[in-house]
Amino acid sequence: MIEKNIAPPNVLTIAGSDPSGGAGIQADLKAFTAFGCYGMSVITALTAQNTLGVQGVHPAPPEFVKQQLRSILDDLEVNAIKTGMLFDAANTRAVARTLKAHYSETESMPPLVVDPVCVSTSGHTLLAPEAVQVVIDELCPLAALITPNKAEAELLLSQKRGATVNISSLEDMISSAESLLALGCKAVLLKGGHVELTLSDVEKLAAARQDVTVVREELLLDNMEILQVNERDLSTRPLVVDVLREAEKTTLFVSPRIESSSTHGTGCTLSAVIASLCSKGNTVAEATRQATAFTHVGIETAFPVGHGHGPLNHLHALTQRIIPPVSHFSSAKTYSHAARTWKAYVEHDFVKQLAKGTLPKECFLHFIKQDYLYLKYYARAYGLLVAKSSTYSSIQSATQTIINIINEVSTHKAFCAQWGISETDLASTPESPSTTAYGAYLIDMGLQGDSAKLIMALAACLLGYGEVGLWLKKEAAKPNSWVKLEGNAYLRWIEDYSGEQYQNAVKLGLETIEALAVADPPSALRFKEWCDIWEKCTQLEKGFWDASLQLL
Amino acid sequence: MIEKNIAPPNVLTIAGSDPSGGAGIQADLKAFTAFGCYGMSVITALTAQNTLGVQGVHPAPPEFVKQQLRSILDDLEVNAIKTGMLFDAANTRAVARTLKAHYSETESMPPLVVDPVCVSTSGHTLLAPEAVQVVIDELCPLAALITPNKAEAELLLSQKRGATVNISSLEDMISSAESLLALGCKAVLLKGGHVELTLSDVEKLAAARQDVTVVREELLLDNMEILQVNERDLSTRPLVVDVLREAEKTTLFVSPRIESSSTHGTGCTLSAVIASLCSKGNTVAEATRQATAFTHVGIETAFPVGHGHGPLNHLHALTQRIIPPVSHFSSAKTYSHAARTWKAYVEHDFVKQLAKGTLPKECFLHFIKQDYLYLKYYARAYGLLVAKSSTYSSIQSATQTIINIINEVSTHKAFCAQWGISETDLASTPESPSTTAYGAYLIDMGLQGDSAKLIMALAACLLGYGEVGLWLKKEAAKPNSWVKLEGNAYLRWIEDYSGEQYQNAVKLGLETIEALAVADPPSALRFKEWCDIWEKCTQLEKGFWDASLQLL
Repeated sequence: MIEKNIAPPNVLTIAGSDPSGGAGIQADLKAFTAFGCYGMSVITALTAQNTLGVQGVHPAPPEFVKQQLRSILDDLEVNAIKTGMLFDAANTRAVARTLKAHYSETESMPPLVVDPVCVSTSGHTLLAPEAVQVVIDELCPLAALITPNKAEAELLLSQKRGATVNISSLEDMISSAESLLALGCKAVLLKGGHVELTLSDVEKLAAARQDVTVVREELLLDNMEILQVNERDLSTRPLVVDVLREAEKTTLFVSPRIESSSTHGTGCTLSAVIASLCSKGNTVAEATRQATAFTHVGIETAFPVGHGHGPLNHLHALTQRIIPPVSHFSSAKTYSHAARTWKAYVEHDFVKQLAKGTLPKECFLHFIKQDYLYLKYYARAYGLLVAKSSTYSSIQSATQTIINIINEVSTHKAFCAQWGISETDLASTPESPSTTAYGAYLIDMGLQGDSAKLIMALAACLLGYGEVGLWLKKEAAKPNSWVKLEGNAYLRWIEDYSGEQYQNAVKLGLETIEALAVADPPSALRFKEWCDIWEKCTQLEKGFWDASLQLL
Repeated sequence: MIEKNIAPPNVLTIAGSDPSGGAGIQADLKAFTAFGCYGMSVITALTAQNTLGVQGVHPAPPEFVKQQLRSILDDLEVNAIKTGMLFDAANTRAVARTLKAHYSETESMPPLVVDPVCVSTSGHTLLAPEAVQVVIDELCPLAALITPNKAEAELLLSQKRGATVNISSLEDMISSAESLLALGCKAVLLKGGHVELTLSDVEKLAAARQDVTVVREELLLDNMEILQVNERDLSTRPLVVDVLREAEKTTLFVSPRIESSSTHGTGCTLSAVIASLCSKGNTVAEATRQATAFTHVGIETAFPVGHGHGPLNHLHALTQRIIPPVSHFSSAKTYSHAARTWKAYVEHDFVKQLAKGTLPKECFLHFIKQDYLYLKYYARAYGLLVAKSSTYSSIQSATQTIINIINEVSTHKAFCAQWGISETDLASTPESPSTTAYGAYLIDMGLQGDSAKLIMALAACLLGYGEVGLWLKKEAAKPNSWVKLEGNAYLRWIEDYSGEQYQNAVKLGLETIEALAVADPPSALRFKEWCDIWEKCTQLEKGFWDASLQLL
């Protein structure tokens, strides 16, 4: 969601504050966040409320509503706006006029979604009667979309016609949405939460009216019997039908009705989500489809909060990003998980003795011969990585590593030749258990998991030898260092791993891991698997050096 | 983050409103959301502000601050609280006394983090001078932690001592934190954003004071040279050091200083994150460690917002959950991605002719013989799934499927025997290209990806035949159905796939997919891979039936 270098859109809500967090600007900010938007909020009124009702309202002065709005418009880009509870005529007027003045002066107005909040779920009046006319006259004409529920649509239409309007059928909803379009907004979403309908109502209407499109929620699609095990018969199941009326077309959004008391703030959330999606360039129809699906799941996954009508779950569409999208963090996080084992590996006695030049020749020979055998597994594991690749570039980079390994093996052979060990001797060396353990584990990871898992398994060796090289180089540069480079029989080994060529390979490996973590952020479970593999391989590396010293 | 059946903790902020969204309750709500908490907010004052400064303040009356707080305390559980800008003495007193009265009456107070906000980044006074004494006398004694920055710590200490206090070194910070502990709070976090320090300052102090623990940010740990390529020399690099003083111990949190103007609301965010983490049972020290790391990455990944000091990135630790944590949604989402192909597969002419009983025998025989060959691949792919398993239970369930396939093959053989085709005939049937394409693709997925990818590849076959079975059964039950069961030569085939045994296997398969998606929520990239595999296999299924009809 929050990838590097892609700034989130800025979305503004102008509404009341619900301290209990389920509705108002609090719900809106949660919804903006759920869709990866940067949220801003102008507060028209403070309320004291909770899941049981509204205990008090303290409106902001219209001048201060205007001042908040100006602070935003003067400094920040705004990519979409929604309005919610505006409370009274003066505040409604302040909002409409400030927006109109600003956008007529400068640029074209971003999508404005007007949720004409009039009455709370608990029955508290949230819009003064005299403000309704201001909404109609001044706000609706600016709107890309208005999102009334049944009661709000009845109120707006009754006010407009001067006679009581009642909405009780799907036909009523469709004709009311059409009438509301005449208020000057570009589209009307008439929410069906308070109108009981079934699939047969929808099908009857769809058959009669060719100009109506029906968008069914996924579980209600055709050929989905297989997913509806244990569901009630769909033809009689109660549905929620939201009616979207745009200039030329009518669309019905159909989803199964959920029996739930967790509906506090559903309307706020729906319009906030539509605004978020519009800020990203979605059409009103596509935004509405996604927003109804989002609130549907929000109600379905709600947790009990408070003693009355609790909020829907605003957070269901989020998971935690375990690794920050910043260079080198994934390696650092994985590493720090196994810091102690890593230290025991990098600062191993074998390495220290090698750096001092005091490591017995037979230990080094044991190591180099086993490493020769190990590298065959290592190359084969990269072969599996080639097989697991989905792009030519990853095929190429894994293949390049195999070539590097073959070159590394050549230097091993040259090294051994100096010490009187032939290639035949090397190949006939019995494999030690620590070599088999490590090598076969790599092949296992290559078979069991995806390329990410295999790359993590291959990383401890690549990075560890790089770290040893850099560490010895740094230590050697200190005055009176314990590292003895001069006359050290193992100098070339130290130089190889601290050298530019190997360090470049390490850099490439790190970049691969980081790119992987950014492109495919691991879940908590997957990240734990990575850490476990990293720790296991770090232990196996340590075991490899233990085995060489056990000869002493 | 939002797993089913685990209710998020409720966290409350009591602070001012920043309409531009970077600080105040807006920043706090974003931080609560980033840590999977349910956010609530009591507003002490509205401000008109943006990234350039504070243009106006409209305080809430103390009685209304109290009423908001009572609405929450009377109805909702509160698992942690933070306070930010309280603005004046009356509001500070209202907050402290309402909290004290409520929690002395009922239960023990949840962790309270007091961020003693006094002055904005832009220099605007956010706490009246006479309120400072109220913070000291009434609020600090209730706090689990107070989180002053340099200026706030100087102000609090100067007020306490009646003489100017100046903090300019690490030693000053440590002794000031200790003095602030005397205000009665359980811990003090003195933030070091405005004190310039280096690693040598920290190391010198750590060497001199055995009672001080140093917690380094991951990149500053030992043996991490390999990750610090291109970094400045660590010994002279400017650092941020936050000092945490608890009853018995002092901890320094050390991270590299980032040059950035995106620091608006850093203090709000830090204390909000600490409150979130404390609400989940973390110690203050652990919460502080994670919170400093979070704000550090937040600054590092900030996007430009506004023309002045922009906010840090509150959303960097979130990614989108592609599949809602609700039963059957993952299959539905995957399915709807390829709805048209799925329909072409399930409602294939082959199926329709079979259901009518009009399918030519040679077509069915071609199909059944190729299916016999295909099922060998299918069984082998489940063998790969066994090899990819990490638990005995997944080994067992994949093995059971292999046994089911072997049984399915027996009914194929019995079917064929009826039509005069021997097992030898079956085995020597040349494999058609559509069979090889499908079978080899399954094996490829089994090699290329992890078990999830393989399970998705195996799903189209399992679910599709189940859907065909249910669809035909439903259609057959309709009056004057086009489906003819009576005398249909293929009746047993229809009965097999609509029957309880096969449908139970489908149910198990669906449950496996759902469990997978909940335990390891896929990233957008991974989910797209799943959808692509699903669509590919759906096409391959359709191709399989196409091939049988091409004989006509």
